[in-house]
Amino acid sequence: MAPPSHCHVDTSNGVHHNGGDAVPVETETTVPPPLQGSRQLDAEEFRRQGHQVVDFIADYYARMGDYYPVHPSVTPGFLRRQLPAEAPARPEPGAFAAALRDVRDLVLPGMTHWQSPRHFAHFPASSSTVGALGEALTAGINAVPFTWAASPAATELEMVVVDWLGKALHLPEGLLFRGGGGGTLLGTSCEAILCALVAAREQKLAETGSRRIGDLVVYCSDQTHFAVRKAARIAGIHRDNFREVATHREDMFALSPTELRAAMQADVDAGLVPLFLCVTIGTTQTTAVDPVRELCAVAAPHGVWVHVDAAYAGSALVCPEFRHVTGGAEAVDSFSMNAHKWLLANNDCCALWARAPSRLTAALGTEQEYILKDAAAEGHDVVDYKDWSMTLTRRFRALKLWLVLRCYGVEGLRAHVRAHVRMAASFEGMVRADARFEVVAPRQFALVCFRLRSPEKFGGEKTANELNRRLLEEVNGTSSGPYMSSAKVGGVYMLRCAIGSTLTEERHVSDAWKVVQDRAASQLRKMEIMYSVLA
Amino acid sequence: MAPPSHCHVDTSNGVHHNGGDAVPVETETTVPPPLQGSRQLDAEEFRRQGHQVVDFIADYYARMGDYYPVHPSVTPGFLRRQLPAEAPARPEPGAFAAALRDVRDLVLPGMTHWQSPRHFAHFPASSSTVGALGEALTAGINAVPFTWAASPAATELEMVVVDWLGKALHLPEGLLFRGGGGGTLLGTSCEAILCALVAAREQKLAETGSRRIGDLVVYCSDQTHFAVRKAARIAGIHRDNFREVATHREDMFALSPTELRAAMQADVDAGLVPLFLCVTIGTTQTTAVDPVRELCAVAAPHGVWVHVDAAYAGSALVCPEFRHVTGGAEAVDSFSMNAHKWLLANNDCCALWARAPSRLTAALGTEQEYILKDAAAEGHDVVDYKDWSMTLTRRFRALKLWLVLRCYGVEGLRAHVRAHVRMAASFEGMVRADARFEVVAPRQFALVCFRLRSPEKFGGEKTANELNRRLLEEVNGTSSGPYMSSAKVGGVYMLRCAIGSTLTEERHVSDAWKVVQDRAASQLRKMEIMYSVLA
Repeated sequence: MAPPSHCHVDTSNGVHHNGGDAVPVETETTVPPPLQGSRQLDAEEFRRQGHQVVDFIADYYARMGDYYPVHPSVTPGFLRRQLPAEAPARPEPGAFAAALRDVRDLVLPGMTHWQSPRHFAHFPASSSTVGALGEALTAGINAVPFTWAASPAATELEMVVVDWLGKALHLPEGLLFRGGGGGTLLGTSCEAILCALVAAREQKLAETGSRRIGDLVVYCSDQTHFAVRKAARIAGIHRDNFREVATHREDMFALSPTELRAAMQADVDAGLVPLFLCVTIGTTQTTAVDPVRELCAVAAPHGVWVHVDAAYAGSALVCPEFRHVTGGAEAVDSFSMNAHKWLLANNDCCALWARAPSRLTAALGTEQEYILKDAAAEGHDVVDYKDWSMTLTRRFRALKLWLVLRCYGVEGLRAHVRAHVRMAASFEGMVRADARFEVVAPRQFALVCFRLRSPEKFGGEKTANELNRRLLEEVNGTSSGPYMSSAKVGGVYMLRCAIGSTLTEERHVSDAWKVVQDRAASQLRKMEIMYSVLA
Repeated sequence: MAPPSHCHVDTSNGVHHNGGDAVPVETETTVPPPLQGSRQLDAEEFRRQGHQVVDFIADYYARMGDYYPVHPSVTPGFLRRQLPAEAPARPEPGAFAAALRDVRDLVLPGMTHWQSPRHFAHFPASSSTVGALGEALTAGINAVPFTWAASPAATELEMVVVDWLGKALHLPEGLLFRGGGGGTLLGTSCEAILCALVAAREQKLAETGSRRIGDLVVYCSDQTHFAVRKAARIAGIHRDNFREVATHREDMFALSPTELRAAMQADVDAGLVPLFLCVTIGTTQTTAVDPVRELCAVAAPHGVWVHVDAAYAGSALVCPEFRHVTGGAEAVDSFSMNAHKWLLANNDCCALWARAPSRLTAALGTEQEYILKDAAAEGHDVVDYKDWSMTLTRRFRALKLWLVLRCYGVEGLRAHVRAHVRMAASFEGMVRADARFEVVAPRQFALVCFRLRSPEKFGGEKTANELNRRLLEEVNGTSSGPYMSSAKVGGVYMLRCAIGSTLTEERHVSDAWKVVQDRAASQLRKMEIMYSVLA
């Protein structure tokens, strides 16, 4: 692998370790004049470099399916070892083109390619051309819309687009601006959950006395994303007061209202104060759906803030056929989902809505003299988004989401989601058709959780987890094959095939299944041999 | 103003409210085939749209200085009123070009243009072509490097680049990976401070007993950014336990070690537990510099975590002549700065370093089965950045910062900072040369805090604040003039001229001063008239 070119090694000779099929980069050999002052934001320089970058990315997409393994075969330190210990004092000649070459030759070969059509791990980070370019526009404009005055159009577009999105997802009107609530765009669900939790905590402490923070209790299921545990920890909820209610396979790993009621009552009996409930629509491990309406009914008598985390499955709500999973959401206090997961809005773009945004701003708002209040805003109840979240500096994320909604339309987003759901159903069908496998948790959206059954003679259940762990390792070890991840629920280890990469087509799914079958056969043969040796 | 084109109003006729000088947008009249599946990430579609976006941004930069007022004359609701209540079901023909036209005709005229050479408000958000394109690349690649395995090259590049940056800023080796510490790239200083505070809190609670959260005290000065107050609130520090030590003009508004010592001792005497001190290098209002070494000496006996917030001025540390302001930083526990403020890395890019990253991960780390540990990482002590911060999803920010350091070099960044410092010194000189004005707080970096003296006959000090408030309003009201912000320190209202926009040149600074002088003369004339009427 070629060392980075600012090590004074000539990499401009066109010989690259990946052979001639790599992303082509324009070779630039002239020494540019030293950049000073406005030259660093020169329009023509931007045009020149910008067109290079656009071609670079386009070429990357064009080669995505075939050229790169989804996950690289590298060991820790592989890249650090190749890079100099310090930044260069001065740029080498043709620094921008040289850096792009290094992105191609050093960085990309060490990436996990989330946009690969064979990336089935975790949850998708579904990209689109419009989403990527929306980010580029935002970065180019580079405004900081922390107050209305700090960039009025950015704040207003955000208000418009969260209503658009909420409406498209069939959310209750009460969560939208048009219905008296309102939303904002943050980076991640971790932030959204933390904001909601802190708002809930501040309100509860105002009611119960500000010294009772140690008595406040947070509830979720044992399937809830660790974002909630992390948020509770950050917000100063005592570690003993975090309740992960156990779920069961017969409930499809959904949070049981009965068990939640019992847990809350036990805490009240112990003198504690139920504070916050996170209801998940589409858990990370198996996309389980907690029953919103019933859980809200349990929480209500205790004055518990109910937040819905629909980080992944929220995107599916764009399709009316999934709308039933939000039944009862009129009663929730806040709701968040990641449009960057499955709705073609590139990273990052988490939408948070609250029924009473004043509770967010009461907890997170700040006033300081140097924050300009625009004279035009006087007498108006303007939204200053800095008071809705943890951060002051924020990016103009609304532009990207607005472009995505404009350019694909709600129907386009539905088609996108439905295509993946269809492929997942097809993959599920293939798994069910092979008696050696089982679908462990029923598919709800576009994730299939499955595993290889361990034959009785190899120890049955006792060896099943290890067998599937090896299977996943082998599947992910094939350089042209799929990349999946795993879950462990109720002691059962399973493979997760999450379909949602924008580039994924039916053939990638059936190819992936063939690799799984092939590796399973090989794994079973190995066990057969081991078994016969031991016998 | 034209309504958005998906309202079925034809805006493709080339007639735009801003006349013919606006950013040109390619008119697209053919109906594209419906986008389905991988078409939404089609390489050639990206290339076609991407080149449009590059030209759009380049044209925006080219017109930045003259075409747009820095701050728009709009009233709340101006944009919301013009946009439809719902997202379109289907994209209109030529949706992407139509959306770009709306960005030009509806959005940009309502923005505050942070990249304008006449933007002197708040702190800069200094852009560069490489920074913007680094963001574009990151968005195009769209990986989610939450663990090493989730994108090995992204994690390793982040490790490399935070060391590069720390070294370039002359930070103590102990904060860098190479010295046993380490850093990460977050979105904002608000996040960095919160991460440090939570790490400190978890360690202190482990020492003192986990029920004492209500006794923990956070310290800073009355000049500290409200990010610290916000972080303390989020982290569950009791509102009564937040100490903003008063600063004085004779100390140049720096936090006094003597007063801090007294405050800490008083808390200890009251049975409270000093937890966390935020030392600021370059406060938001006047860029005051707290004395790091002396404050660390006060904090040490109490086992207080010392964090340095150098959000703005951290960029200046790239110049050796500013290095003295970090004297004693070997003793701090953590340090953060925003490379997106003044170091040509577009939003967002906050670097956080910690002397003992294990204290961050002890507080913020999480383990869950479905997080893939790559087999290659076994036996290695890999960095999983999800455990260093509040969020799981994160963007590949290292790519942008690496490109900026590669393409401008440390010397280039120095030249960038020094140019602004020179212009600020020049502006300061102009203020001092006009006896009607005074420089209120000594200039330390590239911010000048100044005000118009109120003549005795108009009430002197009593009317000075109002006079300057009106002055700022008039200065910001000129459509071709500068845009500044204000501060109020020790009861004194002042104007802030923060120089740092990449496009700002000497002429913009002297033009700005002429506008200030002109508006001051007008303001004084008005007072003269009012005075003579009243007399």
